[in-house]
Amino acid sequence: MSTRTIQVDRDIAADRKQAAQVAREQFTRQGTLVVNLVSSPGAGKTSLLQATAEYWNGRQRMAVLVGDIATNRDAERLAPYMPVKQLTTGGACHLELELVQRGLKQLPEVDYEFLFIENIGNLVCPASHDLAEHLRVVLVSTTEGDDKPGKYPKMFRTSQAMLISKLDLLPYVPFSVAAVIEDARTIQGDIEVMQVCALTGTGIETWCEWLDQQRQQLLVKGASV
Amino acid sequence: MSTRTIQVDRDIAADRKQAAQVAREQFTRQGTLVVNLVSSPGAGKTSLLQATAEYWNGRQRMAVLVGDIATNRDAERLAPYMPVKQLTTGGACHLELELVQRGLKQLPEVDYEFLFIENIGNLVCPASHDLAEHLRVVLVSTTEGDDKPGKYPKMFRTSQAMLISKLDLLPYVPFSVAAVIEDARTIQGDIEVMQVCALTGTGIETWCEWLDQQRQQLLVKGASV
Repeated sequence: MSTRTIQVDRDIAADRKQAAQVAREQFTRQGTLVVNLVSSPGAGKTSLLQATAEYWNGRQRMAVLVGDIATNRDAERLAPYMPVKQLTTGGACHLELELVQRGLKQLPEVDYEFLFIENIGNLVCPASHDLAEHLRVVLVSTTEGDDKPGKYPKMFRTSQAMLISKLDLLPYVPFSVAAVIEDARTIQGDIEVMQVCALTGTGIETWCEWLDQQRQQLLVKGASV
Repeated sequence: MSTRTIQVDRDIAADRKQAAQVAREQFTRQGTLVVNLVSSPGAGKTSLLQATAEYWNGRQRMAVLVGDIATNRDAERLAPYMPVKQLTTGGACHLELELVQRGLKQLPEVDYEFLFIENIGNLVCPASHDLAEHLRVVLVSTTEGDDKPGKYPKMFRTSQAMLISKLDLLPYVPFSVAAVIEDARTIQGDIEVMQVCALTGTGIETWCEWLDQQRQQLLVKGASV
Protein backbone atom coordinates (compact mmCIF):
# COMPACT_ATOMS: atom_id res chain seq x y z
CA MET A 1 0.00 0.00 0.00
CA SER A 2 1.36 3.43 -0.78
CA THR A 3 1.41 6.35 1.57
CA ARG A 4 1.52 10.06 0.84
CA THR A 5 2.80 11.64 4.01
CA ILE A 6 1.03 14.82 4.95
CA GLN A 7 1.29 16.84 8.14
CA VAL A 8 -1.74 15.31 9.85
CA ASP A 9 -0.05 11.89 9.72
CA ARG A 10 2.40 12.99 12.40
CA ASP A 11 -0.35 13.51 14.91
CA ILE A 12 -1.93 10.18 13.97
CA ALA A 13 1.43 8.45 14.51
CA ALA A 14 1.91 10.14 17.88
CA ASP A 15 -1.64 9.23 18.94
CA ARG A 16 -1.11 5.62 17.94
CA LYS A 17 2.18 5.38 19.81
CA GLN A 18 0.52 6.79 22.90
CA ALA A 19 -2.46 4.41 22.62
CA ALA A 20 -0.13 1.41 22.29
CA GLN A 21 1.82 2.53 25.35
CA VAL A 22 -1.33 2.89 27.44
CA ALA A 23 -2.60 -0.54 26.36
CA ARG A 24 0.80 -2.13 27.06
CA GLU A 25 0.87 -0.71 30.59
CA GLN A 26 -2.59 -2.14 31.21
CA PHE A 27 -1.39 -5.59 30.11
CA THR A 28 1.66 -5.19 32.37
CA ARG A 29 -0.49 -4.36 35.39
CA GLN A 30 -2.72 -7.38 34.83
CA GLY A 31 0.30 -9.67 34.32
CA THR A 32 -0.47 -10.67 30.74
CA LEU A 33 2.61 -10.99 28.54
CA VAL A 34 1.72 -9.94 25.00
CA VAL A 35 3.74 -11.51 22.19
CA ASN A 36 3.49 -10.31 18.58
CA LEU A 37 4.54 -13.14 16.25
CA VAL A 38 5.76 -11.98 12.84
CA SER A 39 7.26 -13.78 9.83
CA SER A 40 7.01 -14.52 6.13
CA PRO A 41 3.93 -16.49 5.05
CA GLY A 42 4.25 -20.13 6.04
CA ALA A 43 7.23 -19.82 8.41
CA GLY A 44 5.32 -21.71 11.08
CA LYS A 45 3.64 -19.23 13.44
CA THR A 46 0.47 -21.29 13.79
CA SER A 47 2.36 -24.57 14.26
CA LEU A 48 4.53 -22.91 16.92
CA LEU A 49 1.43 -21.86 18.85
CA GLN A 50 -0.03 -25.36 18.61
CA ALA A 51 3.24 -26.82 19.94
CA THR A 52 3.38 -24.19 22.72
CA ALA A 53 -0.15 -25.07 23.87
CA GLU A 54 0.65 -28.78 23.77
CA TYR A 55 3.78 -28.29 25.84
CA TRP A 56 2.02 -26.21 28.50
CA ASN A 57 -1.00 -28.52 28.42
CA GLY A 58 -3.18 -26.15 30.44
CA ARG A 59 -0.50 -25.06 32.94
CA GLN A 60 -0.57 -21.53 31.52
CA ARG A 61 -3.66 -19.69 30.35
CA MET A 62 -3.07 -18.47 26.82
CA ALA A 63 -5.20 -16.88 24.12
CA VAL A 64 -4.50 -15.81 20.56
CA LEU A 65 -5.65 -13.16 18.13
CA VAL A 66 -4.97 -14.40 14.60
CA GLY A 67 -4.53 -11.99 11.73
CA ASP A 68 -5.28 -12.97 8.16
CA ILE A 69 -6.11 -11.11 5.00
CA ALA A 70 -8.81 -13.60 4.11
CA THR A 71 -10.08 -16.97 5.43
CA ASN A 72 -10.13 -18.18 9.04
CA ARG A 73 -7.87 -21.17 8.40
CA ASP A 74 -5.36 -20.40 11.16
CA ALA A 75 -8.09 -19.73 13.71
CA GLU A 76 -9.65 -23.10 12.91
CA ARG A 77 -6.29 -24.80 13.46
CA LEU A 78 -5.84 -23.07 16.84
CA ALA A 79 -9.39 -23.32 18.21
CA PRO A 80 -8.87 -26.82 19.70
CA TYR A 81 -5.93 -25.50 21.75
CA MET A 82 -6.95 -22.14 23.22
CA PRO A 83 -9.43 -19.26 23.02
CA VAL A 84 -8.94 -17.67 19.62
CA LYS A 85 -10.36 -14.70 17.74
CA GLN A 86 -9.77 -14.30 14.01
CA LEU A 87 -8.91 -10.79 12.82
CA THR A 88 -9.55 -10.52 9.11
CA THR A 89 -8.04 -7.43 7.53
CA GLY A 90 -9.89 -7.72 4.22
CA GLY A 91 -6.77 -6.97 2.19
CA ALA A 92 -4.60 -4.94 4.54
CA CYS A 93 -1.01 -6.12 4.87
CA HIS A 94 -0.62 -5.79 8.66
CA LEU A 95 -2.58 -5.64 11.91
CA GLU A 96 -3.29 -2.38 13.69
CA LEU A 97 -3.92 -1.74 17.37
CA GLU A 98 -7.60 -0.82 16.92
CA LEU A 99 -8.34 -4.19 15.31
CA VAL A 100 -6.42 -5.99 18.05
CA GLN A 101 -8.40 -4.17 20.73
CA ARG A 102 -11.71 -4.98 19.06
CA GLY A 103 -10.68 -8.64 18.89
CA LEU A 104 -9.62 -8.69 22.52
CA LYS A 105 -13.13 -7.70 23.60
CA GLN A 106 -14.46 -10.82 21.91
CA LEU A 107 -12.21 -13.24 23.78
CA PRO A 108 -13.51 -14.78 27.01
CA GLU A 109 -12.72 -12.41 29.90
CA VAL A 110 -9.95 -14.24 31.69
CA ASP A 111 -6.64 -13.07 33.17
CA TYR A 112 -4.44 -14.74 30.60
CA GLU A 113 -0.80 -15.33 31.39
CA PHE A 114 0.02 -15.02 27.68
CA LEU A 115 -1.72 -13.24 24.84
CA PHE A 116 -0.31 -14.07 21.43
CA ILE A 117 -0.95 -11.99 18.36
CA GLU A 118 -0.27 -13.92 15.17
CA ASN A 119 0.36 -11.18 12.63
CA ILE A 120 -0.17 -11.26 8.85
CA GLY A 121 2.53 -13.26 7.04
CA ASN A 122 4.66 -10.33 5.87
CA LEU A 123 8.23 -9.40 6.79
CA VAL A 124 7.76 -5.75 5.83
CA CYS A 125 4.69 -3.78 6.87
CA PRO A 126 3.97 -5.30 10.34
CA ALA A 127 7.38 -3.98 11.46
CA SER A 128 5.92 -0.47 11.51
CA HIS A 129 2.93 -1.17 13.78
CA ASP A 130 3.04 -1.31 17.57
CA LEU A 131 0.26 -3.62 18.75
CA ALA A 132 0.91 -2.95 22.44
CA GLU A 133 3.05 -6.07 22.63
CA HIS A 134 5.79 -6.59 25.21
CA LEU A 135 7.76 -8.78 22.84
CA ARG A 136 8.03 -8.98 19.09
CA VAL A 137 9.25 -12.39 17.98
CA VAL A 138 10.27 -12.96 14.37
CA LEU A 139 10.33 -16.46 12.89
CA VAL A 140 12.67 -17.26 10.04
CA SER A 141 12.43 -20.75 8.62
CA THR A 142 15.43 -22.73 7.42
CA THR A 143 13.80 -23.01 4.00
CA GLU A 144 13.70 -19.24 3.45
CA GLY A 145 17.45 -18.78 3.29
CA ASP A 146 19.92 -17.37 5.80
CA ASP A 147 20.08 -13.96 4.10
CA LYS A 148 16.72 -12.66 5.32
CA PRO A 149 17.65 -10.41 8.29
CA GLY A 150 19.75 -8.04 6.18
CA LYS A 151 17.10 -7.95 3.46
CA TYR A 152 14.27 -7.10 5.87
CA PRO A 153 16.22 -5.12 8.49
CA LYS A 154 13.43 -3.18 10.19
CA MET A 155 11.65 -6.37 11.25
CA PHE A 156 14.78 -7.77 12.86
CA ARG A 157 15.80 -4.42 14.39
CA THR A 158 12.42 -4.13 16.15
CA SER A 159 12.25 -7.75 17.38
CA GLN A 160 13.50 -8.99 20.74
CA ALA A 161 13.82 -12.59 19.62
CA MET A 162 14.41 -14.56 16.42
CA LEU A 163 13.16 -18.14 16.19
CA ILE A 164 14.83 -20.26 13.55
CA SER A 165 11.97 -22.58 12.57
CA LYS A 166 11.66 -25.82 10.57
CA LEU A 167 14.91 -27.08 12.01
CA ASP A 168 14.06 -30.61 10.79
CA LEU A 169 14.59 -29.48 7.19
CA LEU A 170 18.14 -28.26 7.83
CA PRO A 171 19.79 -31.32 6.23
CA TYR A 172 17.99 -30.66 2.93
CA VAL A 173 18.43 -26.91 2.44
CA PRO A 174 21.30 -24.49 1.81
CA PHE A 175 21.02 -22.67 5.16
CA SER A 176 23.66 -21.80 7.73
CA VAL A 177 22.43 -21.27 11.29
CA ALA A 178 25.67 -19.42 12.10
CA ALA A 179 25.22 -17.10 9.11
CA VAL A 180 21.62 -16.15 9.91
CA ILE A 181 22.54 -15.44 13.54
CA GLU A 182 25.48 -13.28 12.49
CA ASP A 183 23.28 -11.42 10.01
CA ALA A 184 20.57 -10.78 12.61
CA ARG A 185 23.07 -9.67 15.28
CA THR A 186 24.67 -7.19 12.87
CA ILE A 187 21.28 -5.47 12.86
CA GLN A 188 20.24 -6.06 16.45
CA GLY A 189 23.13 -7.08 18.70
CA ASP A 190 20.94 -8.16 21.63
CA ILE A 191 18.46 -10.31 19.74
CA GLU A 192 17.66 -13.56 21.55
CA VAL A 193 17.97 -16.56 19.23
CA MET A 194 16.24 -19.90 19.58
CA GLN A 195 16.01 -22.87 17.24
CA VAL A 196 12.77 -24.81 16.99
CA CYS A 197 10.86 -27.43 15.06
CA ALA A 198 7.19 -27.30 15.93
CA LEU A 199 6.40 -30.62 14.21
CA THR A 200 8.96 -32.66 16.17
CA GLY A 201 8.93 -30.51 19.32
CA THR A 202 12.64 -29.64 19.14
CA GLY A 203 13.39 -26.45 21.08
CA ILE A 204 9.81 -25.97 22.30
CA GLU A 205 10.74 -26.46 25.94
CA THR A 206 13.47 -23.80 25.68
CA TRP A 207 11.04 -21.43 23.96
CA CYS A 208 8.33 -21.94 26.58
CA GLU A 209 10.77 -21.54 29.46
CA TRP A 210 12.09 -18.34 27.91
CA LEU A 211 8.52 -17.03 27.60
CA ASP A 212 7.83 -17.89 31.22
CA GLN A 213 11.02 -16.11 32.29
CA GLN A 214 9.97 -13.04 30.33
CA ARG A 215 6.62 -13.10 32.10
CA GLN A 216 8.24 -13.38 35.53
CA GLN A 217 10.22 -10.23 34.71
CA LEU A 218 6.99 -8.55 33.62
CA LEU A 219 5.35 -9.40 36.96
CA VAL A 220 8.20 -7.73 38.83
CA LYS A 221 7.81 -4.69 36.62
CA GLY A 222 4.00 -4.74 36.91
CA ALA A 223 4.21 -4.68 40.73
CA SER A 224 6.14 -1.44 40.57
CA VAL A 225 3.91 0.31 38.00
CA MET B 1 2.06 0.95 5.32
CA SER B 2 -1.26 2.60 5.96
CA THR B 3 -3.27 4.54 3.46
CA ARG B 4 -5.84 7.23 4.01
CA THR B 5 -7.80 7.42 0.80
CA ILE B 6 -8.62 10.91 -0.29
CA GLN B 7 -10.05 12.10 -3.57
CA VAL B 8 -6.73 12.94 -5.23
CA ASP B 9 -5.70 9.27 -4.94
CA ARG B 10 -8.21 8.34 -7.62
CA ASP B 11 -6.48 10.48 -10.19
CA ILE B 12 -3.09 9.12 -9.13
CA ALA B 13 -4.40 5.57 -9.52
CA ALA B 14 -5.84 6.34 -12.97
CA ASP B 15 -2.59 8.03 -14.05
CA ARG B 16 -0.55 5.06 -12.89
CA LYS B 17 -2.79 2.58 -14.68
CA GLN B 18 -2.47 4.60 -17.87
CA ALA B 19 1.32 4.90 -17.53
CA ALA B 20 1.63 1.12 -17.03
CA GLN B 21 -0.52 0.48 -20.10
CA VAL B 22 1.61 2.79 -22.27
CA ALA B 23 4.85 1.19 -21.06
CA ARG B 24 3.45 -2.31 -21.63
CA GLU B 25 2.48 -1.48 -25.22
CA GLN B 26 6.00 -0.20 -25.82
CA PHE B 27 7.44 -3.50 -24.57
CA THR B 28 4.97 -5.37 -26.78
CA ARG B 29 6.03 -3.44 -29.88
CA GLN B 30 9.72 -4.13 -29.23
CA GLY B 31 9.04 -7.82 -28.57
CA THR B 32 10.22 -7.88 -24.95
CA LEU B 33 8.13 -10.12 -22.69
CA VAL B 34 8.02 -8.58 -19.22
CA VAL B 35 7.55 -10.98 -16.32
CA ASN B 36 6.85 -9.77 -12.77
CA LEU B 37 7.96 -12.47 -10.30
CA VAL B 38 6.23 -12.30 -6.93
CA SER B 39 6.29 -14.49 -3.81
CA SER B 40 6.92 -14.72 -0.08
CA PRO B 41 10.48 -14.02 1.03
CA GLY B 42 12.73 -16.95 0.20
CA ALA B 43 10.39 -18.85 -2.12
CA GLY B 44 13.11 -19.07 -4.76
CA LYS B 45 12.71 -16.20 -7.23
CA THR B 46 16.44 -15.57 -7.54
CA SER B 47 17.28 -19.28 -7.84
CA LEU B 48 14.61 -19.65 -10.54
CA LEU B 49 16.21 -16.86 -12.56
CA GLN B 50 19.65 -18.44 -12.19
CA ALA B 51 18.25 -21.78 -13.40
CA THR B 52 16.43 -20.05 -16.28
CA ALA B 53 19.63 -18.36 -17.45
CA GLU B 54 21.57 -21.62 -17.18
CA TYR B 55 18.95 -23.46 -19.22
CA TRP B 56 18.91 -20.86 -22.00
CA ASN B 57 22.67 -20.49 -21.86
CA GLY B 58 22.73 -17.37 -24.03
CA ARG B 59 20.05 -18.49 -26.54
CA GLN B 60 17.69 -15.80 -25.26
CA ARG B 61 18.68 -12.31 -24.20
CA MET B 62 17.36 -11.67 -20.74
CA ALA B 63 17.80 -8.94 -18.14
CA VAL B 64 16.51 -8.48 -14.64
CA LEU B 65 15.50 -5.65 -12.34
CA VAL B 66 15.79 -6.87 -8.75
CA GLY B 67 13.76 -5.28 -5.99
CA ASP B 68 14.91 -5.33 -2.38
CA ILE B 69 14.21 -3.25 0.68
CA ALA B 70 17.86 -3.22 1.64
CA THR B 71 21.10 -4.90 0.45
CA ASN B 72 22.03 -5.92 -3.09
CA ARG B 73 22.39 -9.60 -2.29
CA ASP B 74 20.07 -10.86 -5.04
CA ALA B 75 21.67 -8.62 -7.66
CA GLU B 76 25.09 -10.01 -6.73
CA ARG B 77 23.78 -13.55 -7.17
CA LEU B 78 22.34 -12.73 -10.59
CA ALA B 79 25.13 -10.57 -12.01
CA PRO B 80 27.16 -13.55 -13.35
CA TYR B 81 24.15 -14.66 -15.42
CA MET B 82 22.62 -11.58 -17.03
CA PRO B 83 22.49 -7.76 -17.02
CA VAL B 84 21.01 -6.79 -13.68
CA LYS B 85 20.01 -3.57 -11.94
CA GLN B 86 19.23 -3.51 -8.24
CA LEU B 87 16.20 -1.47 -7.19
CA THR B 88 16.42 -0.68 -3.49
CA THR B 89 13.18 0.64 -2.04
CA GLY B 90 14.67 1.82 1.26
CA GLY B 91 11.85 0.34 3.30
CA ALA B 92 8.91 0.27 0.89
CA CYS B 93 7.09 -3.05 0.67
CA HIS B 94 6.65 -3.25 -3.12
CA LEU B 95 8.04 -1.95 -6.41
CA GLU B 96 6.39 0.85 -8.33
CA LEU B 97 6.48 1.59 -12.04
CA GLU B 98 8.54 4.78 -11.69
CA LEU B 99 11.35 2.89 -9.96
CA VAL B 100 11.21 0.14 -12.58
CA GLN B 101 11.47 2.70 -15.36
CA ARG B 102 14.42 4.43 -13.73
CA GLY B 103 16.15 1.06 -13.37
CA LEU B 104 15.46 0.15 -16.97
CA LYS B 105 17.40 3.20 -18.15
CA GLN B 106 20.45 1.88 -16.35
CA LEU B 107 20.46 -1.50 -18.08
CA PRO B 108 22.52 -1.89 -21.27
CA GLU B 109 20.38 -0.82 -24.24
CA VAL B 110 19.62 -4.11 -25.90
CA ASP B 111 16.42 -5.56 -27.37
CA TYR B 112 15.91 -8.17 -24.71
CA GLU B 113 13.65 -11.10 -25.39
CA PHE B 114 12.77 -11.27 -21.71
CA LEU B 115 12.80 -8.66 -18.96
CA PHE B 116 12.27 -10.08 -15.50
CA ILE B 117 11.27 -8.00 -12.53
CA GLU B 118 12.02 -9.71 -9.26
CA ASN B 119 9.65 -8.04 -6.83
CA ILE B 120 10.03 -7.57 -3.06
CA GLY B 121 9.36 -10.80 -1.13
CA ASN B 122 5.80 -10.04 -0.04
CA LEU B 123 2.57 -11.82 -0.94
CA VAL B 124 0.41 -8.79 -0.17
CA CYS B 125 1.34 -5.29 -1.34
CA PRO B 126 2.96 -6.07 -4.73
CA ALA B 127 -0.42 -7.47 -5.87
CA SER B 128 -1.73 -3.91 -6.10
CA HIS B 129 0.98 -2.49 -8.37
CA ASP B 130 1.06 -2.82 -12.15
CA LEU B 131 4.70 -2.68 -13.28
CA ALA B 132 3.84 -2.80 -17.00
CA GLU B 133 4.37 -6.56 -16.99
CA HIS B 134 2.76 -8.90 -19.50
CA LEU B 135 2.75 -11.74 -17.01
CA ARG B 136 2.63 -11.90 -13.26
CA VAL B 137 4.03 -15.18 -11.98
CA VAL B 138 3.60 -16.14 -8.33
CA LEU B 139 5.90 -18.69 -6.71
CA VAL B 140 4.67 -20.74 -3.78
CA SER B 141 7.20 -23.07 -2.21
CA THR B 142 6.31 -26.51 -0.87
CA THR B 143 7.65 -25.47 2.52
CA GLU B 144 5.15 -22.61 2.91
CA GLY B 145 2.08 -24.81 3.10
CA ASP B 146 -0.65 -25.56 0.58
CA ASP B 147 -3.11 -23.09 2.14
CA LYS B 148 -1.49 -19.91 0.81
CA PRO B 149 -3.65 -19.02 -2.23
CA GLY B 150 -6.85 -18.61 -0.20
CA LYS B 151 -5.01 -16.64 2.47
CA TYR B 152 -3.46 -14.18 -0.02
CA PRO B 153 -6.19 -14.18 -2.69
CA LYS B 154 -5.41 -10.93 -4.53
CA MET B 155 -1.94 -12.11 -5.47
CA PHE B 156 -3.26 -15.33 -6.97
CA ARG B 157 -6.25 -13.64 -8.62
CA THR B 158 -3.95 -11.21 -10.45
CA SER B 159 -1.34 -13.79 -11.52
CA GLN B 160 -1.35 -15.68 -14.79
CA ALA B 161 0.83 -18.52 -13.53
CA MET B 162 1.68 -20.21 -10.25
CA LEU B 163 5.01 -21.98 -9.87
CA ILE B 164 5.18 -24.56 -7.11
CA SER B 165 8.83 -24.27 -6.08
CA LYS B 166 11.23 -26.35 -3.94
CA LEU B 167 9.72 -29.55 -5.27
CA ASP B 168 12.71 -31.51 -3.93
CA LEU B 169 11.50 -30.89 -0.36
CA LEU B 170 8.07 -32.42 -1.00
CA PRO B 171 8.91 -35.73 0.76
CA TYR B 172 9.73 -33.86 3.99
CA VAL B 173 6.86 -31.39 4.34
CA PRO B 174 3.10 -31.53 4.91
CA PHE B 175 2.13 -30.14 1.48
CA SER B 176 -0.36 -31.42 -1.09
CA VAL B 177 0.24 -30.36 -4.69
CA ALA B 178 -3.39 -31.22 -5.53
CA ALA B 179 -4.67 -29.08 -2.64
CA VAL B 180 -2.66 -25.99 -3.55
CA ILE B 181 -3.76 -26.24 -7.19
CA GLU B 182 -7.40 -26.61 -6.18
CA ASP B 183 -7.08 -23.65 -3.81
CA ALA B 184 -5.48 -21.44 -6.50
CA ARG B 185 -8.03 -22.44 -9.16
CA THR B 186 -10.91 -21.60 -6.84
CA ILE B 187 -9.59 -18.04 -6.95
CA GLN B 188 -8.36 -17.92 -10.54
CA GLY B 189 -9.77 -20.73 -12.68
CA ASP B 190 -7.39 -20.16 -15.60
CA ILE B 191 -4.13 -19.98 -13.68
CA GLU B 192 -1.30 -21.90 -15.34
CA VAL B 193 0.45 -24.22 -12.90
CA MET B 194 4.02 -25.50 -13.15
CA GLN B 195 6.16 -27.42 -10.66
CA VAL B 196 9.85 -26.63 -10.38
CA CYS B 197 12.97 -27.18 -8.39
CA ALA B 198 15.61 -24.63 -9.31
CA LEU B 199 18.41 -26.46 -7.47
CA THR B 200 17.94 -29.79 -9.29
CA GLY B 201 16.57 -28.34 -12.55
CA THR B 202 13.24 -30.19 -12.32
CA GLY B 203 10.57 -28.44 -14.39
CA ILE B 204 12.90 -25.71 -15.68
CA GLU B 205 12.61 -26.85 -19.31
CA THR B 206 8.80 -26.74 -19.12
CA TRP B 207 8.95 -23.27 -17.53
CA CYS B 208 11.34 -21.93 -20.18
CA GLU B 209 9.30 -23.41 -23.02
CA TRP B 210 6.16 -21.89 -21.60
CA LEU B 211 7.88 -18.50 -21.40
CA ASP B 212 9.02 -18.83 -24.99
CA GLN B 213 5.50 -19.74 -26.09
CA GLN B 214 4.15 -16.68 -24.28
CA ARG B 215 6.69 -14.54 -26.09
CA GLN B 216 5.74 -15.98 -29.48
CA GLN B 217 2.14 -14.99 -28.78
CA LEU B 218 3.36 -11.53 -27.82
CA LEU B 219 5.19 -11.17 -31.14
CA VAL B 220 1.99 -11.94 -33.04
CA LYS B 221 0.18 -9.37 -30.96
CA GLY B 222 3.00 -6.83 -31.31
CA ALA B 223 2.89 -7.08 -35.12
CA SER B 224 -0.74 -5.98 -35.04
CA VAL B 225 -0.29 -3.09 -32.58
